[in-house]
Amino acid sequence: MSRDEPRTGSAEDRLIARYFAPLARQPGAFGLTDDAAILTPPDASDLVLTNDTIIAGVHFFPDDPADAVARKALRVNLSDLAAKGAEPAGFLLSLALPPDATEQWLAALAQGLRTDADRYGCPLLGGDTVRTPGPVMISVTAFGLLPRGTMVRRSGAKAGESVMVTGTIGDAALGLRLRRDPGVARQWGLDDAMRDHLMSRYLVPEPRNAVAVAIRTHASAAMDVSDGLAGDLGKLCGVSGVLAELDVMRVPLSEAARQAMGADPRLIETILTGGDDYEIVCTVAPERIAALQTACSDAGVALTEIGRAGAGEGARFIAPDGKALTFERASFSHF
Amino acid sequence: MSRDEPRTGSAEDRLIARYFAPLARQPGAFGLTDDAAILTPPDASDLVLTNDTIIAGVHFFPDDPADAVARKALRVNLSDLAAKGAEPAGFLLSLALPPDATEQWLAALAQGLRTDADRYGCPLLGGDTVRTPGPVMISVTAFGLLPRGTMVRRSGAKAGESVMVTGTIGDAALGLRLRRDPGVARQWGLDDAMRDHLMSRYLVPEPRNAVAVAIRTHASAAMDVSDGLAGDLGKLCGVSGVLAELDVMRVPLSEAARQAMGADPRLIETILTGGDDYEIVCTVAPERIAALQTACSDAGVALTEIGRAGAGEGARFIAPDGKALTFERASFSHF
Repeated sequence: MSRDEPRTGSAEDRLIARYFAPLARQPGAFGLTDDAAILTPPDASDLVLTNDTIIAGVHFFPDDPADAVARKALRVNLSDLAAKGAEPAGFLLSLALPPDATEQWLAALAQGLRTDADRYGCPLLGGDTVRTPGPVMISVTAFGLLPRGTMVRRSGAKAGESVMVTGTIGDAALGLRLRRDPGVARQWGLDDAMRDHLMSRYLVPEPRNAVAVAIRTHASAAMDVSDGLAGDLGKLCGVSGVLAELDVMRVPLSEAARQAMGADPRLIETILTGGDDYEIVCTVAPERIAALQTACSDAGVALTEIGRAGAGEGARFIAPDGKALTFERASFSHF
Repeated sequence: MSRDEPRTGSAEDRLIARYFAPLARQPGAFGLTDDAAILTPPDASDLVLTNDTIIAGVHFFPDDPADAVARKALRVNLSDLAAKGAEPAGFLLSLALPPDATEQWLAALAQGLRTDADRYGCPLLGGDTVRTPGPVMISVTAFGLLPRGTMVRRSGAKAGESVMVTGTIGDAALGLRLRRDPGVARQWGLDDAMRDHLMSRYLVPEPRNAVAVAIRTHASAAMDVSDGLAGDLGKLCGVSGVLAELDVMRVPLSEAARQAMGADPRLIETILTGGDDYEIVCTVAPERIAALQTACSDAGVALTEIGRAGAGEGARFIAPDGKALTFERASFSHF
């Protein structure tokens, strides 16, 4: 063995050194030159752990830009941290690459990760890079920190509390429809800006980390909306043992979603069950609502009251005629 | 939406509830019914983070038993924790399943995880399950704990220290050869027990968590041998800035490996560079050797001194004729 070999390392080592080591500037990442990374939690803290995996052809389109794919992979995890009230502390990246992954693609992927790692204060700490005969797979494990015992669970909702949701619902699900069938833009009467808005909401979600501390301070239960508001809120109410009654007309919609639904009212099902929203749905006691509203407003994040939790179990969306909506499928599932 | 839907959940929820929730008995796993898990590190501790991903057809054979695959996925991560001196605290599982994954396969996978989670005290905390059009992918992120600042790095080796390795080297690489070409068993003159030993070392590695605390207490640098002793030790010496001179004759071999190498001496390259050993290689100051030997012996783990670190950089294996071995490829890489 020549002395140079271990210093040069394998192709995998070179790939890591070139594209990912520059992102790993946290001391505990050891520049990706060790077997493991270190996270030093402040005393009296809890570490919040979350993992989401995305696969080409399943969770994103193989020809989506690599930087957008990278940002989506990180942001879907950041969204979980936000909904739990945790502040980002770093992430591990597991990347499976097919043989035809190009240097250009990898460079763009790394650039996307770097942009959002900086933006959200969530540095790369380590990970693994492997070959696959299958599609590109990006699995992110993200770590969040919060004072011990303060994670916001799904199970804390109580009867009498308000159900609130950040941002707007349904944009990404409509964006996915547009991505699959560009012709529906005309059918829905969307102008270019509306179409672009919906498609960008699918391509790169906007996690609500700016209000994580406010959620932790004021919400009794919360989760991020990834598989559709109807199903996700149903899960939250299920484990909390409450029945949420939601006013369909109060579900916050973007101008573009409102335009599309005006053209085709049946889209309400896509909007409420399609998923990929990455907004936070939460329950809030009456005396906390004003404070949470103020905190969200200060952070520039819209927060809308859409209904109320009462006795029972589940979630019901009430239409203007007073009847509960029924959906073919309450939430999105690849299975 | 009927009230029953969110309680029943999607097929993914049912799969998780059936196969994985029974493994998630740690309070911080919330029975896999929340978006995230919690780990509460003791004050003044560091959390050690590691991720390894294995893919069918790349890191294991598609027809390997699912329980063995599961154990391998967990153990390769446990091995990293052991080499860093950390005690297991839990893991997240990211699982990508092709449409043809059967219930039977999943049940066996879950059983394998349960067996080793219990054996190594490393409970399932959470994760993600997704569909893939590609091969099965199992990505484990494992968490270890140790007193703050005590992780054993690769970079701490100093000139004058001994290089030591646990267990035996080369078994798994020979086992992989046997798995690919059963005919070599006869060529190497192996009896059935020898063949089975080598193949089982490839199928399910034996991580050295039993000596993690001893490694942390006595070793100056350590890593687990996953990509071949020659290349991995070369990396350790590279970042430490030492040159290790190893006596080829002192590299610990199993009876089976010794038999194979007797039949074909060129197998020394496979043994030293093939990988999948999941033993710990470490450097130890002279005054620490006896204590580390005793601790390993108490734990039933063999520990062998194979050479010494000196001035220079890299790793050289010296043959009985006094010359350094040269290898075609120092360490294993899929890239």
